[in-house]
Amino acid sequence: MSIGVIYGSTRENGNTEWLTEQAISGVPVEKFYLREFHILPIKDERHTVGGFQEVSDDYKQLVGKIMKHDVLIFATPVYWYSMSGTMKLFIDRWSQTLRDKDFPNFREELAKKSAYVIAVGGDKPTIKALPMIQQFQYICDFFGMALEGYIIGKASKPGEIRGDAKAIASANQMRITLLRCLEK
Amino acid sequence: MSIGVIYGSTRENGNTEWLTEQAISGVPVEKFYLREFHILPIKDERHTVGGFQEVSDDYKQLVGKIMKHDVLIFATPVYWYSMSGTMKLFIDRWSQTLRDKDFPNFREELAKKSAYVIAVGGDKPTIKALPMIQQFQYICDFFGMALEGYIIGKASKPGEIRGDAKAIASANQMRITLLRCLEK
Amino acid sequence: MSIGVIYGSTRENGNTEWLTEQAISGVPVEKFYLREFHILPIKDERHTVGGFQEVSDDYKQLVGKIMKHDVLIFATPVYWYSMSGTMKLFIDRWSQTLRDKDFPNFREELAKKSAYVIAVGGDKPTIKALPMIQQFQYICDFFGMALEGYIIGKASKPGEIRGDAKAIASANQMRITLLRCLEK
Amino acid sequence: MSIGVIYGSTRENGNTEWLTEQAISGVPVEKFYLREFHILPIKDERHTVGGFQEVSDDYKQLVGKIMKHDVLIFATPVYWYSMSGTMKLFIDRWSQTLRDKDFPNFREELAKKSAYVIAVGGDKPTIKALPMIQQFQYICDFFGMALEGYIIGKASKPGEIRGDAKAIASANQMRITLLRCLEK
Repeated sequence: MSIGVIYGSTRENGNTEWLTEQAISGVPVEKFYLREFHILPIKDERHTVGGFQEVSDDYKQLVGKIMKHDVLIFATPVYWYSMSGTMKLFIDRWSQTLRDKDFPNFREELAKKSAYVIAVGGDKPTIKALPMIQQFQYICDFFGMALEGYIIGKASKPGEIRGDAKAIASANQMRITLLRCLEK
Repeated sequence: MSIGVIYGSTRENGNTEWLTEQAISGVPVEKFYLREFHILPIKDERHTVGGFQEVSDDYKQLVGKIMKHDVLIFATPVYWYSMSGTMKLFIDRWSQTLRDKDFPNFREELAKKSAYVIAVGGDKPTIKALPMIQQFQYICDFFGMALEGYIIGKASKPGEIRGDAKAIASANQMRITLLRCLEK
Repeated sequence: MSIGVIYGSTRENGNTEWLTEQAISGVPVEKFYLREFHILPIKDERHTVGGFQEVSDDYKQLVGKIMKHDVLIFATPVYWYSMSGTMKLFIDRWSQTLRDKDFPNFREELAKKSAYVIAVGGDKPTIKALPMIQQFQYICDFFGMALEGYIIGKASKPGEIRGDAKAIASANQMRITLLRCLEK
Repeated sequence: MSIGVIYGSTRENGNTEWLTEQAISGVPVEKFYLREFHILPIKDERHTVGGFQEVSDDYKQLVGKIMKHDVLIFATPVYWYSMSGTMKLFIDRWSQTLRDKDFPNFREELAKKSAYVIAVGGDKPTIKALPMIQQFQYICDFFGMALEGYIIGKASKPGEIRGDAKAIASANQMRITLLRCLEK
């Protein structure tokens, strides 16, 4: 049982990362900072003769590494009430991987995984980030992947998340769950 | 009174564009195909000394052109239950424009505009694209911009949207509204 | 193939009823005005020894009549951003019917039906009634019933719905669908 | 500063009440069990000559008592993905109180209050009860009342809520917030 954390922030050591650290403190994980990779927007070639063309960026190698994990934690700041564009670019490309002969069981493999979402926003996120949570649920449903939980923190300025006792308590709960998960 | 249409599709002449054409047939508009522009993901430098740095891509010139219009139509395919990454990259950058001295009244200018959303998806979009509509509403609320209406079409394969009589009827209604709007 | 319309309004000839009339004009339906029936709030006795007790009101006879139809149209005003309490009382009682030996196949029977929702509200309903639509979808999902469509109209004062061209166009579309449905 | 708890359950000592007890343990509150009151469905007489007629049930006296509190906690089981019909009947009647000369400042008074929601459901409530949370937010927005927080617990059988460590941790956090609130 292994855990991969996918970070969608564009700022280092931001609030989302800090909150995520609370949830994975003492938990062995592999971290993927999407901002360190070059990922191009998907080009919809589902209906093109020849299908999707190989894209020369870091996506394919990255998704290969991520797929080795059993549990995926999506850690994203809330940008304009949804996941960051950086995170969205990554997820959009799944449409290509679904048709990539190098990932013949992409859907089936994802169906076996569990997912968590950790998100931090500045504008009433416990309400206004709920549509984003519903979208992550729909994504998980598509693959039959279990969305095991989510945390929504409130912060805007650097460090502000440290004052969100509620989110921190939830992160502690998630940490306990993850540790228990690893024992299995 | 003038209208700008912002296309988030990555495929030419796709279902989203076809449905949008129904809504703007005979309506003078300026069209912006985001896929034809080079737009980088935002780098969150809100809290960096010196603030946001100039980015060398097409975004700034593009947003300048779009801001000249009174009505904005956001036409996006539904990718993974939300707007396309291409569209999201564009909107994420608004956080930078909000702090750009070359756009000193960005918020106030958007507050005077009206917005429409036209979206086409393949997986139960009239239900599963509703979180995306709620997000567009939150975005509009942030600026005080009026979200005047939206259409959700259902289609996956090329041309399939032509069979969605309900969406086409809604597009016709939107067309009447837009024409009336221009008479003012 | 037969159609039942379940009205949740408490006012006669209100906006919700008028909009629904557009959708069923010329369509043979049986109408159920919930306000004309005495329906008590459910008493949760799922976990009580002996289970649910017989309730002396009109519910059981009413649900029996409604279940004879293949298509159910739920027509409700939007009260406080969700279905009317009158409609909610009716639906809450389904938990009892699910355990009623006189309805041994309640779930299976509902799974074969199609549902439509017609709702009219006064406060930005095309946005603020969306959570209610999502709830109807969850209800339908529970039973495996297909939510085939919904219309959200905007009106507050008596007669005001006549000015909602968009909702009326959607009602006409629903009417065509219902008529086609009956031909099968 | 005083706190009123409004219970929408129809079963005594159920999961919703147990979870709420965690949040108010040691906190002085007044409790209102809606099931103990006779509350009729609203009859929409907003547009009737003479307006709303006096209704002979317990509602008016009850709402008068509840309005004396500064903080309102809405504790409801999730029935069919929204608040219980019992809770909905109560809230629907607010439309009448808004026009009741005995409550000339109903809206202004509610604008000064804070609200919390505690809800327990059996079917994936942390996702499927989110539309209900959005509805409570819209209700609060209507009055300008602050929705300060919410907890969603998962339980179906009696006592099952005791196993929801996440919800219990959130209830403890809410308890700390409420106690701090009372000190003001």
